[in-house]
Amino acid sequence: MDAAPHPDLGPLARLIGTWSGEGEGHYPTIEPFRYRERVEFTHAGKPFLAYRQTTVDLRTTLPAHAEAGYLRAVGRGRVELVLAHPTGLVEVAEGTVEERPDGLELRLRSAVHRTPTAKEVTAVERHVRVGGEVLRYDVAMAAVGQPLQHHLAAELRRHG
Amino acid sequence: MDAAPHPDLGPLARLIGTWSGEGEGHYPTIEPFRYRERVEFTHAGKPFLAYRQTTVDLRTTLPAHAEAGYLRAVGRGRVELVLAHPTGLVEVAEGTVEERPDGLELRLRSAVHRTPTAKEVTAVERHVRVGGEVLRYDVAMAAVGQPLQHHLAAELRRHG
Repeated sequence: MDAAPHPDLGPLARLIGTWSGEGEGHYPTIEPFRYRERVEFTHAGKPFLAYRQTTVDLRTTLPAHAEAGYLRAVGRGRVELVLAHPTGLVEVAEGTVEERPDGLELRLRSAVHRTPTAKEVTAVERHVRVGGEVLRYDVAMAAVGQPLQHHLAAELRRHG
Repeated sequence: MDAAPHPDLGPLARLIGTWSGEGEGHYPTIEPFRYRERVEFTHAGKPFLAYRQTTVDLRTTLPAHAEAGYLRAVGRGRVELVLAHPTGLVEVAEGTVEERPDGLELRLRSAVHRTPTAKEVTAVERHVRVGGEVLRYDVAMAAVGQPLQHHLAAELRRHG
């Protein structure tokens, strides 16, 4: 987009761009897996970012996960995230963004809603850190009767 | 994507591509408006489509609405849609897809969930018809205390 990032984005403007790298997934009900990920944050001159990501399974090289949604700056260091997954889930998340000397730190907790055919996921927590050109995140998930616990960790680098 | 569309997509595969055109919005609580819209349906070889759209207000020429999510083929003419809006809404929709001689007809009804700062939208209904290279849709919405009623109508043409 041509417009400058909206000033209310504050430190979230540091996310704008394309990031890629690798991550690992674990959960008691599945085999561990490794993935390659591509993440895009774009803006339209408004106080939100459009977010989307896709992953490829490193073992099979086939498309694995995807997510798309919007990250909303709502003032006083508060952030909201709304997100859809092709697995039939949506997330409505609230949390905080803190500016760091060379980046930011985001913490978000989601309520999850789903279609009748989707797997039962009940809560998701995200912890995202950006330092310079590196973005790291951890995702915890409560699903299929398991308590909230570590699920994903990845390290991405900005390339656009 | 390189893969062929997943066979379970059935008539939904007709949506794959980029569409653009114009639409009109009405609601008792706002002034009528006209918009230009761009819609993309893409696939990754799986039985869902990634969907996103953006609109520009025809009067101000500024970005207006956006949506992103996934349309899932779940068998027997049933379809699910999960969707996020930058206004802080998510939709979880169910409905039907019917094949037409030269296209398809989709009917979807959404439950809506939202962040604390989002406007109160409680239900959305979508009726989408594709005939050849033309996609028409109507959206009805229940919001801010108003009953479910006509909100949007648009006509788009495929250009990719």
